[in-house]
Amino acid sequence: MTYHATILVELKEGILDPQGRALEGVLNRLGFNARNIQVGKVIELELDASSEEEARQQVERMASTITNPVMEVFTYQLKAVEVA
Amino acid sequence: MTYHATILVELKEGILDPQGRALEGVLNRLGFNARNIQVGKVIELELDASSEEEARQQVERMASTITNPVMEVFTYQLKAVEVA
Repeated sequence: MTYHATILVELKEGILDPQGRALEGVLNRLGFNARNIQVGKVIELELDASSEEEARQQVERMASTITNPVMEVFTYQLKAVEVA
Repeated sequence: MTYHATILVELKEGILDPQGRALEGVLNRLGFNARNIQVGKVIELELDASSEEEARQQVERMASTITNPVMEVFTYQLKAVEVA
């Protein structure tokens, strides 16, 4: 079965987000009143697995591999893909 | 009223995603059968607006400012924030 995963990687609460600060400065100078800006990564992928449970385990292992546990946290969504 | 926006910026269909390709190579070498990997940005921010409509307009103008219309597309979610 094919699954589609969307993994969201963000900085932990309290970790300085230089990208977010820079973007906030730009947007504020352009007149937007945006604040508390955080920039994260979103990774979309497809994978094959025999069950949803196995797909979850694979995605969690992949996400743990590509994130820095000291500074980042990840969440993910998983859905089965109908193969035409 | 305070609103929380989540803006998702991704490459347009068909645009080469070097980050996605590189990540796919790493994950496949580690034994994961992930494919069609796309890496995008997610921007979370807060803003004040007098109505949801005004908040939508501000978020769309901000997102248009920070994305490259030739290569990127954005989607966003907006929700009102209960001020304690």
